[in-house]
Amino acid sequence: MGYTVDYIASQLQAEFHGDGDIVVDGVAEPGSAGPHDLALALTPAYAADLSRGQAQVAVLWPGADWQVLGLKAAIIAPRGRLAMARLTGLMDPGPDWPEGIHPTALIDPTAQIGADVSIGPFCVIRAGAIVGHLSRIGAHVSIGAGAQIGEGGQIHPGVRIGARVRIGDRVILQPNVVIGADGFSFVTATPSYAETARHHLGRGPVTVPDDPTWHRIHSLGGVEIGDDVEIGAGSTVDAGTIRATRIGRGTKIDNLVQVGHNVVIGQDCLLCAQVGVAGSTVIGDRVVLGGKTGVADNLTIGSDVVTGGGTIVLSNVASGRVMMGYPATAMDSHIASYKALRRLPRWMSRQTAVSHNAVSKPGQSD
Amino acid sequence: MGYTVDYIASQLQAEFHGDGDIVVDGVAEPGSAGPHDLALALTPAYAADLSRGQAQVAVLWPGADWQVLGLKAAIIAPRGRLAMARLTGLMDPGPDWPEGIHPTALIDPTAQIGADVSIGPFCVIRAGAIVGHLSRIGAHVSIGAGAQIGEGGQIHPGVRIGARVRIGDRVILQPNVVIGADGFSFVTATPSYAETARHHLGRGPVTVPDDPTWHRIHSLGGVEIGDDVEIGAGSTVDAGTIRATRIGRGTKIDNLVQVGHNVVIGQDCLLCAQVGVAGSTVIGDRVVLGGKTGVADNLTIGSDVVTGGGTIVLSNVASGRVMMGYPATAMDSHIASYKALRRLPRWMSRQTAVSHNAVSKPGQSD
Amino acid sequence: MGYTVDYIASQLQAEFHGDGDIVVDGVAEPGSAGPHDLALALTPAYAADLSRGQAQVAVLWPGADWQVLGLKAAIIAPRGRLAMARLTGLMDPGPDWPEGIHPTALIDPTAQIGADVSIGPFCVIRAGAIVGHLSRIGAHVSIGAGAQIGEGGQIHPGVRIGARVRIGDRVILQPNVVIGADGFSFVTATPSYAETARHHLGRGPVTVPDDPTWHRIHSLGGVEIGDDVEIGAGSTVDAGTIRATRIGRGTKIDNLVQVGHNVVIGQDCLLCAQVGVAGSTVIGDRVVLGGKTGVADNLTIGSDVVTGGGTIVLSNVASGRVMMGYPATAMDSHIASYKALRRLPRWMSRQTAVSHNAVSKPGQSD
Repeated sequence: MGYTVDYIASQLQAEFHGDGDIVVDGVAEPGSAGPHDLALALTPAYAADLSRGQAQVAVLWPGADWQVLGLKAAIIAPRGRLAMARLTGLMDPGPDWPEGIHPTALIDPTAQIGADVSIGPFCVIRAGAIVGHLSRIGAHVSIGAGAQIGEGGQIHPGVRIGARVRIGDRVILQPNVVIGADGFSFVTATPSYAETARHHLGRGPVTVPDDPTWHRIHSLGGVEIGDDVEIGAGSTVDAGTIRATRIGRGTKIDNLVQVGHNVVIGQDCLLCAQVGVAGSTVIGDRVVLGGKTGVADNLTIGSDVVTGGGTIVLSNVASGRVMMGYPATAMDSHIASYKALRRLPRWMSRQTAVSHNAVSKPGQSD
Repeated sequence: MGYTVDYIASQLQAEFHGDGDIVVDGVAEPGSAGPHDLALALTPAYAADLSRGQAQVAVLWPGADWQVLGLKAAIIAPRGRLAMARLTGLMDPGPDWPEGIHPTALIDPTAQIGADVSIGPFCVIRAGAIVGHLSRIGAHVSIGAGAQIGEGGQIHPGVRIGARVRIGDRVILQPNVVIGADGFSFVTATPSYAETARHHLGRGPVTVPDDPTWHRIHSLGGVEIGDDVEIGAGSTVDAGTIRATRIGRGTKIDNLVQVGHNVVIGQDCLLCAQVGVAGSTVIGDRVVLGGKTGVADNLTIGSDVVTGGGTIVLSNVASGRVMMGYPATAMDSHIASYKALRRLPRWMSRQTAVSHNAVSKPGQSD
Repeated sequence: MGYTVDYIASQLQAEFHGDGDIVVDGVAEPGSAGPHDLALALTPAYAADLSRGQAQVAVLWPGADWQVLGLKAAIIAPRGRLAMARLTGLMDPGPDWPEGIHPTALIDPTAQIGADVSIGPFCVIRAGAIVGHLSRIGAHVSIGAGAQIGEGGQIHPGVRIGARVRIGDRVILQPNVVIGADGFSFVTATPSYAETARHHLGRGPVTVPDDPTWHRIHSLGGVEIGDDVEIGAGSTVDAGTIRATRIGRGTKIDNLVQVGHNVVIGQDCLLCAQVGVAGSTVIGDRVVLGGKTGVADNLTIGSDVVTGGGTIVLSNVASGRVMMGYPATAMDSHIASYKALRRLPRWMSRQTAVSHNAVSKPGQSD
């Protein structure tokens, strides 16, 4: 699968210099590129590596002198990662799943399967489910009764989709994702110690109800996932209680992320790996949650909020805020606090000396 | 599947008012309820929404005036979430898995399968395994040699159960749960740097043993799970080393939770999403661990302990304590410390000025 | 499967005392040991338990008096956990998977399958994949086109291996592990608010680009896993963008761990449960990351680094450092800061009083 420099530049909406007819059939880092690879050297830091590799063509940073770098042609990428998106999209052969429905797949006769789909071996598709045309489903996927998958979807091996799940068009679910499992919602017949202790911060007596049995609140509400969503390997999105848990169009979710029941996530958000959003929390549009961010239940997070890795959000966050820490605070205030905290042990020692001097021997120097 | 108001009220052990013969066939939020839905309006905040929807019947908070709200009947729920538990249990059709054993399921002839089970397509059940009667097993489940599942279990698609696992009655395992994988336990032939560095807090020299190879401690001990336990999607419970890892009756575990080898968890606990409990830690009864709580290895956590989301527990915790923070401390002391920390940067600046004044110009005002 | 005391001692490279011909067929904790079990009493704390159980033979700590303890024989283990590694390895029957290729496994005719393998029911092995001899693969495993598994591997049920994945010899992948899913890498056409806000810490105006669409950077680079690596249940290792994500020989990874795209992890590391390593970070050899440690993207972590549980690493770490906290700092400095933080609320009250006295009434005692 080779492409000319000319063609690649047009796909990248980028300029090229030199010989546009050279054909490349792979992409590589500059130092390990072969003679038929397109080397990626998006910043001047990679210049030296180019001479160690064998690339004749490279994607270069704006202002780079491709001739001095010994290349026969170059593509100039003003926004390097955008060029990478287009270039890797061009070069990606996509999943290696054969077309058509594998004979071992078990599809209920009442399911509606669109045209030109790929459904892999050992899939199980239950009654009334819908798979849109051009969708591709890997091996060992199970799809519950009445679940819907839109057009052009890419559902990887081992994905579990429950009943009452509606998935839009062009959605990618990486391996072993679970959509629509039951939410985690339990209640005791009389107030539990955890319920009362949160109010008095554990300073009251321990009073355990006679019957500590957890009664299960069942999940009737399903999940709705918008168009162009991607969800990473092993992540889980629970069904809502009465209405659906919802993930908005264009939102991207990384691996091992947990989205609790009734959560509503807006459009074009990024949730990095191991993020957890607890039940019934509402998140706006274009929110970026750094890896391992936790958001407590029943909160409202505005649009355009950004959290640093490991942030634990325990209260509402207004739109546009950049947050960090545990509990989450504005990033600049968090940084100020932590700088102070690092100084604190020495500060306490010194202040003790100063105060002592001030009190007992005023007027003397420290 | 419709029910009369009269019948639902009896199932909820609640009073009803108005026309008990009205039939409802679904549950909905007040604003989106159709004419045949039972609306859930458990607090006065939902009153306005009722008029936007079309519900004729609702579950209302104590003291609500159903006639003023324009309803034809109402059920009064003194403890709303308990009513939701009963109501959603009544309305939940349960998994859509056909009865009987699917012909593609591979069941070893020495396995013992109870009466009235449902075993889904492509399941693999190894030699000597036991599945209790009325248990329902979804597609693509694998059950190891000699593993036992009690009566009335619900094992969702993609669950992996290892050898030497004993599961009680009425246990629910959500999709892709893994029970009885090998524990994470390794040792170097001579003390590793990590072993020695923990003692001197990394202040000593870096001394790496000649042979840094990690030797594997195998897991011979299996897992024991009590009756009425539920475990969420993608969670993992490792096998014990010599004796079993144990989870007590009635404990509920959310998604993506890790329970390490040899851990003992008591009865009626709640472990929220992404909790991790490291090897050999013992946890009492009715403990509630908030989302993303981590508990280090070899600790003892008493009964009725509650942790806030994101708590990292690094030492033993006495019964009845409410904990928060990293490292975990009593919640009230944690809150006091963090309030002080937020004030600290400004405080340091002001104290510097005060001390300076006090020392150099005593008697002058600041 | 019984062994004589004599034989076990030789396998443990340990001394034994008493009757070496006694045969044991299991390993147990001292208190619950039966007469044919080998009891593990690796510290004096277990001495009392021995008399409660029925063991005739035990593995004991150096200096223990086996005759006083009422035993017929004893093995002395100078490094107890190393003895456990050897002993449990000896006693572990291993996975219960039959030899040979199950007739339901679907293996592409172009795949190369070594001798003496075990391949379980419902496995799917794509074109050009390679499985080395003596490797054992459980049920429901999917292996992508061209993926390679070395010799003597142990691949548990539900594992997902993508295309462009190369796995060394004797690698163990626990159930539902996902190797080679697509990396999480997206870019907007013009700078997103998250990009700009990180620079000004959210203090600037909220400026959202006209087009907030996330463009996908595809993963062409695969994964390379060295010999003797083990990866725990549900963990995920993403494919690299251009070059492979790499995990070095002998590294052990626990459950629910996320390793992002382009990450390079050295040899003989331990990554405990729920660790997350973000994209393009490079980690040295013999690094031990405690449970729930998070490491941000594009960092360099030296060799012999140790982190405590819950550490969030936001900047580079030099070799040999022992780290803790959020953000991660040297463990001793972290402990000093937190001790000071605990004292801070009371300190602030007292200092206020002292300063006040010092300023208004210098010379008086507090």
